Amino acid sequence: MTSPEEQAYHLLTEYSNGFMVSQVLFAACELGVFDLLAEAPEPLGAAAVAARLGTSSCGTELLLDTCVSLKLLQVQTRRGKALYQNTELSSTYLVRASLKCQANMLRYLARTTYLCWGHVAQAVRDGKNQYQEAFGVPSDELFTAIYRSEGERLQVMRGLQDVWSISGRHVLAAFDLSPFPLICDIGGDFFKDPLPEADLYILARVLHDWTDARCSHLLARIHRACKPGGGILVIESLLDADGRGPLTTQLYSLNMLVQTEGRERTPAQYLALLAPAGFQDFQCRRTGGIYDAILARR
Amino acid sequence: MTSPEEQAYHLLTEYSNGFMVSQVLFAACELGVFDLLAEAPEPLGAAAVAARLGTSSCGTELLLDTCVSLKLLQVQTRRGKALYQNTELSSTYLVRASLKCQANMLRYLARTTYLCWGHVAQAVRDGKNQYQEAFGVPSDELFTAIYRSEGERLQVMRGLQDVWSISGRHVLAAFDLSPFPLICDIGGDFFKDPLPEADLYILARVLHDWTDARCSHLLARIHRACKPGGGILVIESLLDADGRGPLTTQLYSLNMLVQTEGRERTPAQYLALLAPAGFQDFQCRRTGGIYDAILARR
Repeated sequence: MTSPEEQAYHLLTEYSNGFMVSQVLFAACELGVFDLLAEAPEPLGAAAVAARLGTSSCGTELLLDTCVSLKLLQVQTRRGKALYQNTELSSTYLVRASLKCQANMLRYLARTTYLCWGHVAQAVRDGKNQYQEAFGVPSDELFTAIYRSEGERLQVMRGLQDVWSISGRHVLAAFDLSPFPLICDIGGDFFKDPLPEADLYILARVLHDWTDARCSHLLARIHRACKPGGGILVIESLLDADGRGPLTTQLYSLNMLVQTEGRERTPAQYLALLAPAGFQDFQCRRTGGIYDAILARR
Repeated sequence: MTSPEEQAYHLLTEYSNGFMVSQVLFAACELGVFDLLAEAPEPLGAAAVAARLGTSSCGTELLLDTCVSLKLLQVQTRRGKALYQNTELSSTYLVRASLKCQANMLRYLARTTYLCWGHVAQAVRDGKNQYQEAFGVPSDELFTAIYRSEGERLQVMRGLQDVWSISGRHVLAAFDLSPFPLICDIGGDFFKDPLPEADLYILARVLHDWTDARCSHLLARIHRACKPGGGILVIESLLDADGRGPLTTQLYSLNMLVQTEGRERTPAQYLALLAPAGFQDFQCRRTGGIYDAILARR
């Protein structure tokens, strides 16, 4: 029997320790725990894992046991010895040999996003991203900051690919795209370069990086390039109509605050950008996953 | 209907976003959101909160709405305007005027612990704390690193006091301490200075900072100073007998790895330290909270 006050304290503890849970996941991935266990012909003891990864025995055992509590690993005891192996979760999402592996995304979160979020209070004060504070680089040219080295650029790209390995088919199945024979997936330096003519333009996690003004500018350019009868498919994580959920999208919107010039938006906010640019027949589909789809016609 | 694979992905997302949840809590505390709403005679809109805190309007609204999803704030709409106020959770634990306020502890977690945990993979490799990497200070003298400035020392002290405002009465009520008229609460530089004679020595979150060898040395010193018929009360967060839970204690044990020379231990591991130092009549009481109590007699 716990009182409401004790339950509230439990919740507070869960929130305040959230970063530790993230880092257990990130560290186990980075150290190669899940790959090693996937490749081993049988479950391994903590000493064997430590020996093969070149990690300390005390730290490794503790990390493995914490992964067990998080259902990232499972353990069995044979002749008094604890032996560890992957769970369905880690086999599917944390082993590099899996098509759905999220290791690149987690590495990006661990190395870049985690540091930016150390400045989230300042980002709320300033209303702008914190690359200068977190990494000492200016962010006037946003993607010069985001792609501040070739290694960082590759990390971002690979992280985004990880996410699409999960969400891609859901968002692309949200609408019948067969009426659009020529599809252009918008990326790169799309504010300046001429846009190719196409039947459908896909803007996947592009608009959320930018201010309303920049979005309007881009959407107007796309409208001009778009073939008659063509359209635009906007793929984003959508906020609820009142802007107060879902939590994951709110966190991603704060992430846009600390890492970009944009934010996540409600369907109505996307409509308010698309309509003045000349798009119509606005349709919004929630996928049940993190990313949703909006289709509009020229 | 979600498949087991989708549930696993949801759990993975929750873990990977855990640090964002922590930072929402930390930032709202640091910016003074909960104190402002506690002092205001009525619920406030986001614009009023931003104006009084000197924060950006876009960032503030987003932060407040995310706090609503986390049950740290509640919102009501009057004449189309969203008005925010504290919940029971924030009134009890996040407002500085509350006796149970945890703001100092959260500030310590946000400013020190969060940064150390950015190096947890390296801590598992090395089997040692990461003050050098996180703050550029050596940790050969552990508390020289932990108390590396007067401000930091005060922050640690105030943080620990916050925790005792919640856990103190539970751990002290775990045993009848009336047979011990003279009680000495051990703190400070206790490896070198003479220890005062007492009936009971309290070691609250002391042993978890140190290696087995240092603990044994300290326990032997206490045994020598202890009055006949006296005892020792060890207050720590206890691991389960098999070392594989509870999760909170495992996270704190990893925290000991990244921040100290020690770790959290099982009851049997504390017995293995106390018995060779001469203590007996070992009794262990789980409080149901984060911190537990072990009593042993001279």
